Amino acid sequence: MERVNRHFQEELDALQGRLLEMGGLAEERVRTALQGLVNRDPGMIEGTLAGDEPVNELHLDIDNRCFTLLALHQPMAKDLRAVVACVKINTDLERVGDLAVNIAEAARRYIGHPPVKQLIDIPRMGEIAQGMLRDALDCFVKRDTRLAQHVLEQDDYLDALKTQIFRELLTYMIENPTTVEPALDLILISRHLERIGDHATNVAEDVIFMVEALDVRHLSSTPPQA
Amino acid sequence: MERVNRHFQEELDALQGRLLEMGGLAEERVRTALQGLVNRDPGMIEGTLAGDEPVNELHLDIDNRCFTLLALHQPMAKDLRAVVACVKINTDLERVGDLAVNIAEAARRYIGHPPVKQLIDIPRMGEIAQGMLRDALDCFVKRDTRLAQHVLEQDDYLDALKTQIFRELLTYMIENPTTVEPALDLILISRHLERIGDHATNVAEDVIFMVEALDVRHLSSTPPQA
Repeated sequence: MERVNRHFQEELDALQGRLLEMGGLAEERVRTALQGLVNRDPGMIEGTLAGDEPVNELHLDIDNRCFTLLALHQPMAKDLRAVVACVKINTDLERVGDLAVNIAEAARRYIGHPPVKQLIDIPRMGEIAQGMLRDALDCFVKRDTRLAQHVLEQDDYLDALKTQIFRELLTYMIENPTTVEPALDLILISRHLERIGDHATNVAEDVIFMVEALDVRHLSSTPPQA
Repeated sequence: MERVNRHFQEELDALQGRLLEMGGLAEERVRTALQGLVNRDPGMIEGTLAGDEPVNELHLDIDNRCFTLLALHQPMAKDLRAVVACVKINTDLERVGDLAVNIAEAARRYIGHPPVKQLIDIPRMGEIAQGMLRDALDCFVKRDTRLAQHVLEQDDYLDALKTQIFRELLTYMIENPTTVEPALDLILISRHLERIGDHATNVAEDVIFMVEALDVRHLSSTPPQA
């Protein structure tokens, strides 16, 4: 039994290692897409559009590992929560990879037009979303629920920035029709970044559940914003 | 052992019943939000904005049931795949409920302006997305992988409609600045509907995995569209 438990722990460590690898990759893809936008660099943008295979492969591999762990070791309590958390975190990280593609697609259209007032607060939103993602992965590794709580708090800030960006861009679009297309793409990018923040939030909530067996989802009655 | 298996099957049936209830509720919320948009009915829109508690409660209840089933019965093979599929489908259905709120938020802004050319193809997109969701739940109940395949095919059609709507609305916005705000909200709604289609697709893929132990995700190299 001792040998079986050690084997489980090794497999769980390997699984978590793959999940971190995937998180790092997804985050890097978001960063590259945003750098392509800021630097108006078609190469970086096309690189993001073309490179989603490794994330997708990790997604399938991690799902298989979770399934195998559940089937072979039938973990209980804390261990079971850890594996179920990995299933969910895997889904969130895969979506972050997809959102990097969505950002790159909007960025590709955007750089075909004259820039809109230095991208307003998009780079700031990008920094926050990426920071949330890094912190979410970090709190997962360290089982750090205080850091997880910090991720949840950051999400409100990201939502507020998105709303502010929306209003600002709307004004440009109404005043000057030549800004309609690029401003629209910035609005879409701000929403993709907001969703990356949502996925980081999901990861943080899964970590809290995993560590404390405490479900913090749906505790606030604030609905998500459109 | 026979008694334990029967107990597992009863619990799994109850779990699936709750999941269907949640799917029906999420679909109804999308329908109400869209009807509020089409009929310009603030009451229906506000009703959607206020009513996400039941979906959220089901979300937590279903997650707990999955966890209990895994912990108490340690299911194997087909049964294990069924419970893991329920964990994932639960996440997708909860997001559909959130997207109904997002649609209602955009609809609330939209009906404050004169209408844009009879909402173009938004109601058509709504019908397809809702049909996909219904079919996805139906193929889950019946373990029908052919119907699941049909859901996957519908998703391409939904994406094409979204792209067409985007181009059409962009033209309006550039030609007539008074359409910028309402047209922008229709673009956002079309994207929310596209995401509902994506969640229905996820459910269909989970059903195929559950029934055939065959992973059909990431088989196509087409990246998602922004």
